[in-house]
Amino acid sequence: MRALVLEKKGELALREIALPLDVGPDDVRIAIHTVGVCGSDVHYYTHGAIGSYVVRAPMVLGHEASGTIVETGANVRTLKVGDRVCMEPGVPNLSSRATKLGIYNVDPDVSFWATPPVHGILAPQAVHPAAFTYRLPDNVSFAEGAMVEPFAIGMQAAARARIVPGDVAVVVGCGPIGIMIALAALAGGCSKVLISDFSAPKLEIAARYPGIVPVNIGEQSLVDAVAEATNKWGADIVFEASGSPKAFANLFDVVRPGGAVVLVGLPVEPVALNVPAAISKEVRIETVFRYANIFDRALQLIASGKVDLNPLITGTYAFDDSIEAFERAAAGKPEDVKLQILISSEKG
Amino acid sequence: MRALVLEKKGELALREIALPLDVGPDDVRIAIHTVGVCGSDVHYYTHGAIGSYVVRAPMVLGHEASGTIVETGANVRTLKVGDRVCMEPGVPNLSSRATKLGIYNVDPDVSFWATPPVHGILAPQAVHPAAFTYRLPDNVSFAEGAMVEPFAIGMQAAARARIVPGDVAVVVGCGPIGIMIALAALAGGCSKVLISDFSAPKLEIAARYPGIVPVNIGEQSLVDAVAEATNKWGADIVFEASGSPKAFANLFDVVRPGGAVVLVGLPVEPVALNVPAAISKEVRIETVFRYANIFDRALQLIASGKVDLNPLITGTYAFDDSIEAFERAAAGKPEDVKLQILISSEKG
Amino acid sequence: MRALVLEKKGELALREIALPLDVGPDDVRIAIHTVGVCGSDVHYYTHGAIGSYVVRAPMVLGHEASGTIVETGANVRTLKVGDRVCMEPGVPNLSSRATKLGIYNVDPDVSFWATPPVHGILAPQAVHPAAFTYRLPDNVSFAEGAMVEPFAIGMQAAARARIVPGDVAVVVGCGPIGIMIALAALAGGCSKVLISDFSAPKLEIAARYPGIVPVNIGEQSLVDAVAEATNKWGADIVFEASGSPKAFANLFDVVRPGGAVVLVGLPVEPVALNVPAAISKEVRIETVFRYANIFDRALQLIASGKVDLNPLITGTYAFDDSIEAFERAAAGKPEDVKLQILISSEKG
Amino acid sequence: MRALVLEKKGELALREIALPLDVGPDDVRIAIHTVGVCGSDVHYYTHGAIGSYVVRAPMVLGHEASGTIVETGANVRTLKVGDRVCMEPGVPNLSSRATKLGIYNVDPDVSFWATPPVHGILAPQAVHPAAFTYRLPDNVSFAEGAMVEPFAIGMQAAARARIVPGDVAVVVGCGPIGIMIALAALAGGCSKVLISDFSAPKLEIAARYPGIVPVNIGEQSLVDAVAEATNKWGADIVFEASGSPKAFANLFDVVRPGGAVVLVGLPVEPVALNVPAAISKEVRIETVFRYANIFDRALQLIASGKVDLNPLITGTYAFDDSIEAFERAAAGKPEDVKLQILISSEKG
Repeated sequence: MRALVLEKKGELALREIALPLDVGPDDVRIAIHTVGVCGSDVHYYTHGAIGSYVVRAPMVLGHEASGTIVETGANVRTLKVGDRVCMEPGVPNLSSRATKLGIYNVDPDVSFWATPPVHGILAPQAVHPAAFTYRLPDNVSFAEGAMVEPFAIGMQAAARARIVPGDVAVVVGCGPIGIMIALAALAGGCSKVLISDFSAPKLEIAARYPGIVPVNIGEQSLVDAVAEATNKWGADIVFEASGSPKAFANLFDVVRPGGAVVLVGLPVEPVALNVPAAISKEVRIETVFRYANIFDRALQLIASGKVDLNPLITGTYAFDDSIEAFERAAAGKPEDVKLQILISSEKG
Repeated sequence: MRALVLEKKGELALREIALPLDVGPDDVRIAIHTVGVCGSDVHYYTHGAIGSYVVRAPMVLGHEASGTIVETGANVRTLKVGDRVCMEPGVPNLSSRATKLGIYNVDPDVSFWATPPVHGILAPQAVHPAAFTYRLPDNVSFAEGAMVEPFAIGMQAAARARIVPGDVAVVVGCGPIGIMIALAALAGGCSKVLISDFSAPKLEIAARYPGIVPVNIGEQSLVDAVAEATNKWGADIVFEASGSPKAFANLFDVVRPGGAVVLVGLPVEPVALNVPAAISKEVRIETVFRYANIFDRALQLIASGKVDLNPLITGTYAFDDSIEAFERAAAGKPEDVKLQILISSEKG
Repeated sequence: MRALVLEKKGELALREIALPLDVGPDDVRIAIHTVGVCGSDVHYYTHGAIGSYVVRAPMVLGHEASGTIVETGANVRTLKVGDRVCMEPGVPNLSSRATKLGIYNVDPDVSFWATPPVHGILAPQAVHPAAFTYRLPDNVSFAEGAMVEPFAIGMQAAARARIVPGDVAVVVGCGPIGIMIALAALAGGCSKVLISDFSAPKLEIAARYPGIVPVNIGEQSLVDAVAEATNKWGADIVFEASGSPKAFANLFDVVRPGGAVVLVGLPVEPVALNVPAAISKEVRIETVFRYANIFDRALQLIASGKVDLNPLITGTYAFDDSIEAFERAAAGKPEDVKLQILISSEKG
Repeated sequence: MRALVLEKKGELALREIALPLDVGPDDVRIAIHTVGVCGSDVHYYTHGAIGSYVVRAPMVLGHEASGTIVETGANVRTLKVGDRVCMEPGVPNLSSRATKLGIYNVDPDVSFWATPPVHGILAPQAVHPAAFTYRLPDNVSFAEGAMVEPFAIGMQAAARARIVPGDVAVVVGCGPIGIMIALAALAGGCSKVLISDFSAPKLEIAARYPGIVPVNIGEQSLVDAVAEATNKWGADIVFEASGSPKAFANLFDVVRPGGAVVLVGLPVEPVALNVPAAISKEVRIETVFRYANIFDRALQLIASGKVDLNPLITGTYAFDDSIEAFERAAAGKPEDVKLQILISSEKG
């Protein structure tokens, strides 16, 4: 099969590669339609590694995908050939302790697309367990289907925050994940979300959504902005989506007594937290690792119209132009949120 | 002061009555602007009692109110003269065990407007603790302010449901409270709310809101409608808002395994529940009694534009026409959701 | 293999029967050591059915078991030959929606030992998925290992109650499950458990445990006993373990405002609940169906010495005397809590 | 009144001082019996300040107290003269937002005994709100009553941990608060608690309690000890009770995937946390600030016999010898857990 292969750090090739296509009894085979380019894909391209995950052999990239079922295994009853679907890229050991607990995202044995040494799905076909493949509602496009994966991270953050209806939230960092969190928090019950960043173009994209209030921290202190918006009480929930050590410094100055701080952005190393401040407000701190049991509810919110992800797709490329898409993504323009690659030209 | 007094069952009078207006150190005095007519007000008028609460002496009606602060007690720092406000009608004993726990709504000593023998606030002025008086954001009108109380019941139901973002909900009963619950559930994180009733006109009002799906159970089985909407899995949350014993019969047929049923509607007597069905799905059942710590978050959602209650105000009367308002409310037209009485003619 | 077979209602035979012993890659084969006699086994014997589960063909009884691993499948890494174990009798579809959520007990496809048409394990050997087979700590005997299943129901009830340390609980019904709940609630954080029944001998057994307070409701009103024990505030948690419709009548009179009622006992039909009383205290009602993710924590509590189940084993029979054990169990003596059958004579 | 006064850093005096003894309508006056010496009292003595709380004027020390009611205010119905009681030292503003939410411990306006400029209660009498004064059960001594305050911190930690029955916990730091947490965690549902410290004498005291497993981290790695105790899965809950920056470094190495870390010990400044490790296990982090709604449940556990605090009282002094008690406490012998001062010689 022809696939987008990361040969090694800095070197991409669109070339033939052998990928397993055996369909087990609980699997489906999918004709891939659309694949989003994720920051982690780009990071493997530009750095050859993320933390301890190092690319040591050629690896197919891509893990945000939608497509159409072309074959189903013998036991599969929930899906049928022709179903339009999107896929959860991580597959846990179904018999593990974590999976039995319902927290399969933290199963140490999870296998995740485009995380070395596992191949991704920037290729015409893939085989996947039916249990981690989700039918797209009729009014959800392939493009939106390929947005479910990044949106699921925002949704996991919103779920772990345990939003009480009407909560006021802050999102620190207006990158793609920050925006996803803001949208999930609003759809998930918040009345208002302040989002902070240094980049005016990024904030401008977020601010187009009603309910999202941009805070340019180059111009205004976040602490002041939150104090003003909450009558000095503080935000009910603060999502950290930047991963920047500096951003962690004042998280507990913007959260209310008894509020929650949700850590999503991944810093490279241990980071200083103002534990005394956290304790004096008895803050709850949640952390977010990927997602579990989220794809179906993310799809519900998209299908219902409560969440519109289309404005975040800022560029679309043909499969043949995949490398160009990665180069643009690697350039990191602030106006870009999500680039997608079309493997198939089928409409929908 | 001139007030709308329920002399006894079936007899209303707009007349002078002595009401205490002493402002204690933690109190505020409010010039009442708008008062909504609640089903309980009407029930005292038509029946003279609700359960064990019996009207034994003339009582001022009304507990859904907004107005303007005209005096503040010595200790009050959170409000000032001129603030536009709405008020929580129940005041607990601040030193009680329930209040210390944060569940002041179930304090046995709570004193609640227009619940015998406590007077309501269909009168030009009232005195109230500042702690239970909430400033209206500038873009929230007096009319909306007087809607916060009934909306708060929907919000309490949504809060106790512990919605996970994207949940699909069912509301059984499309009366005013059913609609409030549906709106709170949607704003509070649900992707979709099916609402059921026999009354087409009531369903039509609810169905004007995007995200609310009407189910006319005179024409279609609720069980079938939910099975279809959820691919046979069942609803994540089912709110009972009718109080009708018949409605309780199949609550557990429409909820998913591990889902939640939230009981809001108050039946008159004990009611048969299909406990074996509830157990076989290990359903969580929550009950809702008024609200606690809800008014501020209800106001946030109204101010943010996520919840628009204006279409539910189906009639407005001058204070002089209060009795006419009650007669119309007692007629119980299906097209009517909420009637309001203006005590003041001030704009806003 | 020789097994205890329920031929049909009222007819037991200890005879040869063909049982599948193929060990799949994720399975283990177990030499059964001890099997407890459960009320449901006895009910199939005496009535031929439980609700819609009807014995239509000869079925091996028994689902509370411990034993020793004698063979492991190719993928099994968590267990090895020689491990002493106990087994969770219900096996869900690992790919189902409920299982992914961590609530595999409510997976509609669960297969459960000795529930028609699935055979139980009153036989020398059984094959079971390793994921539902739990190693016994060294200081836990086979007899205790075979008590884990009924104790797990009490543990599930305690887990769903969400006990806050120091809670006062009530258990309604002092049968085997009632006692299991009381022990789990105490070990799980309650300071005190009142247990009610009409049967003095049953109460006497429970009262031997420190922290369990018997209430003979033939002599004293439960409402009075709880009011006295809680200074009229009510119990934090009330567990219903009788399944008797009469017991449901006053559940909400003994629970505190904002407390929880946990329904474990299975009534035969819908039952009247005092919903108005539940609402006025805003009670949370939980239901309990078997258990999920409980066996390992039940074993921890037994191994730690916090829970001693040995006094509840009131009779032990050789495999050859199985039918006699069932006849005694069917007699339902109040002094009997749990009868066990030894398939093996190995010590430990 | 004669009281133990901290004149300034390093200077204590047992001398006359004017203290307000007016009993308001919601207050009680208490004859103090026993007062425990807390680390914070000692710290004010030795350092003159804790963080931003600086002793700028003579201040009476002491906040862990029991005694007997000698007068009740006009509104007090829950207590009467002669009741033996213990007192919650922090009194919030009853009308504040935090108090209404039930989290009065984080009310910014809380007034707390022996926290500058508020006097403590090392004196013969004190006046206190009845709502924060708790009757001692008959079988709880004055000595135990004065232990409720420090135990309440352990209980708050156990409550916020949301223990599921059978959880395995780790407590980092075997000082007085570490031991209190371990006891609360065991009584609150844990099967086993590993407690770590460098000090063998401290560990020896803790290890006398069944269920507490000492880990001398001078001799054995905590990570190894937990891996061994949990079959490499990790602890369900890790309580940080040392406040030492070094201890924070490996908290996430000992907790299981999806587990909880509870921060109780107060470091002086921001501290480095391994956020990447916390995220990869999706750990929940809770913080603990004093306690709210805990005293009554702490008393229930002591009265039930589930928690015995007497072995932790390692020295008792007469009021006249108060300064000697403080000097011994300031010496910080590892064999000492709690020293108490008897204001009254009444028995009980």
